[in-house]
Amino acid sequence: MQKKEYMLRAIELAKQGVGWTSPNPLVGAVIVKDGRIIGEGYHEKYGELHAERNAIKHLKESAEGATIYVTLEPCCHYGKQPPCTEAIAEAGIKKVVIGSRDPNPLVAGKGVRFLRAQGIEVEEDFMREECDELNPVFFHFIQMKRPYIVMKYAMTMDGKIATKTGKSKWITSEQSRKIVHEMRDQYTAIMAGIGTVLKDDPMLNTRIEGKKSPIRIICDSKLQIPLESKICQSAKEYPTIIACADAEQEKKADLEMLGVQVLEVSKEGRVDLKKLIEILGEQKIDSILLEGGGTLNESMLRENLVNEVHVFLAPKIFGGKGAPSPVEGCGICEVKDAKEFYLQDIRKIGEDVQLTYRKEVPKCLQEL
Amino acid sequence: MQKKEYMLRAIELAKQGVGWTSPNPLVGAVIVKDGRIIGEGYHEKYGELHAERNAIKHLKESAEGATIYVTLEPCCHYGKQPPCTEAIAEAGIKKVVIGSRDPNPLVAGKGVRFLRAQGIEVEEDFMREECDELNPVFFHFIQMKRPYIVMKYAMTMDGKIATKTGKSKWITSEQSRKIVHEMRDQYTAIMAGIGTVLKDDPMLNTRIEGKKSPIRIICDSKLQIPLESKICQSAKEYPTIIACADAEQEKKADLEMLGVQVLEVSKEGRVDLKKLIEILGEQKIDSILLEGGGTLNESMLRENLVNEVHVFLAPKIFGGKGAPSPVEGCGICEVKDAKEFYLQDIRKIGEDVQLTYRKEVPKCLQEL
Repeated sequence: MQKKEYMLRAIELAKQGVGWTSPNPLVGAVIVKDGRIIGEGYHEKYGELHAERNAIKHLKESAEGATIYVTLEPCCHYGKQPPCTEAIAEAGIKKVVIGSRDPNPLVAGKGVRFLRAQGIEVEEDFMREECDELNPVFFHFIQMKRPYIVMKYAMTMDGKIATKTGKSKWITSEQSRKIVHEMRDQYTAIMAGIGTVLKDDPMLNTRIEGKKSPIRIICDSKLQIPLESKICQSAKEYPTIIACADAEQEKKADLEMLGVQVLEVSKEGRVDLKKLIEILGEQKIDSILLEGGGTLNESMLRENLVNEVHVFLAPKIFGGKGAPSPVEGCGICEVKDAKEFYLQDIRKIGEDVQLTYRKEVPKCLQEL
Repeated sequence: MQKKEYMLRAIELAKQGVGWTSPNPLVGAVIVKDGRIIGEGYHEKYGELHAERNAIKHLKESAEGATIYVTLEPCCHYGKQPPCTEAIAEAGIKKVVIGSRDPNPLVAGKGVRFLRAQGIEVEEDFMREECDELNPVFFHFIQMKRPYIVMKYAMTMDGKIATKTGKSKWITSEQSRKIVHEMRDQYTAIMAGIGTVLKDDPMLNTRIEGKKSPIRIICDSKLQIPLESKICQSAKEYPTIIACADAEQEKKADLEMLGVQVLEVSKEGRVDLKKLIEILGEQKIDSILLEGGGTLNESMLRENLVNEVHVFLAPKIFGGKGAPSPVEGCGICEVKDAKEFYLQDIRKIGEDVQLTYRKEVPKCLQEL
């Protein structure tokens, strides 16, 4: 096997932690000696052993003189776990091959310096791009201090998210809807507009056994949400944040009684989305799945807050001049002003198609 | 090599005729003896040799006792060419393996009967589905006696075909636009609405060197098309049909002077699309690329005249509540009434995605 294959194996291992490590990153590690893998591990769950320690724990023989491939720079500070750099030195490993650099200022570069000071050879930036891809949310949140936002919508071949009378059950297949529920499990919070709540009275939780549900965030400028809505009635069970521009104090108190956190963030009579997202970042919300209607989606895009877009495209046509589309609001006038994305992935899901788009990788990451 | 591989080779050969055989079908043939291919051929151009005769022409040795694999039942009537069944018998071929049945009533089954009468073994329906796929236009036109209609549109990730101010140059990449021009070469005619003509003053021709241009069909209920439009001014060079509901006789005469064919097909003050498509069929137009706006597209769908839809999806977002979408008009109210298609192909074209959808194969074809 070659170097590249060892790192690919480490990436594969890292992915097994999806949904369980947040706010920690996904990390995988492979220990190699004499051309054989003698130990493998990954960060399995937040608060538990890091990938390097798991790989060392699973060693089949002594790692004396071995090389470790790890997707992210090993930590050298005491967090929930003792530093991995020490474990690597203690195991007698003589070389460390690293994929991603750690964007966390507490760690960046320190792990590498510690290892070198111990006489261990270190190779950095090996397959860095592939390794960075493991943790877009982590990199974004650590650096920008605000959540990574994934916009998701289901639409017909002709770009409609409902018929002209507002019917949308169901545009996509059961299989696609199951994937959306799995997405809800991958992000810390889910965001919708008041329009969706008034129209569908949804729960916005994860309907999958044994899975945690996301924090629910509703944008509701005029605090119109009915106290008897499912969202409000279940706020003690599922954390719920309602963002408004102007709160009538009595309504606010009623909502708080039901367990809702009400945030007043006003800008010209509407919810100040930029400010809201900053506050959510301060509350340690690292990622949001945006399931907005056309108005909220457009506002989020206009503020450049969307990092990723998932389009579920169904093989049917609704037609209708007034039928709602996924991004409405004001919109642009000139083609050159369009919000541009790049296509990351196309997946066929039965007769539906899931398209994943990403905003261009931010400069701050490219220059790291 | 196996039987299946021989037929796949015949299919591959047939495809080399794309764009040149219309209104004839694409056909490929492979002659096999002692496990070796000794002759190959395909229908290269309308009016020229059929696939079987081309394969026989290219024989490297005697076909005495050989087997021929042919994607479509050999003809046994005198058309532009003498019957292929005779050539097969003369060549001493002892077995014929056939993919598609010929839907043309002049031929259907007769070729097979002639061959059997000559003592030649015939196997029918071998990989028929794959072979039928070669000629959807041909099968449709022969059976329904009206053109096969392919709707095509370029839209953004949020389902817009222009910005709210009507700008659409360009939604997709140069690469995608080149494919659209190649499509124009594949179909006999191209259809657009008067809205497109008034807005863009297009030529609707094929801008590819050495390629024929399609017949242009404009739906224009009130005969609003300006005499000085590029379409009218070039009608002597490129055949042009304008369909209207009520023609002012003077305007009609002026258009005819310019070389335009004016068709009056009225139903309740609008163009009777069903009737129009029937007339176009009578004029031997076997296929139409529909590049309509939202209104024409919706009318064509409502009349169940669309056989195929090609969506070119660009990685950008326009937004805008009023921005035009590919299918507008009246539209449906209930999700269950949506026009359904099935996804036949997904192709990545740079950052764009081309999605090809087909209407369910009509019963009459399935039961053949």
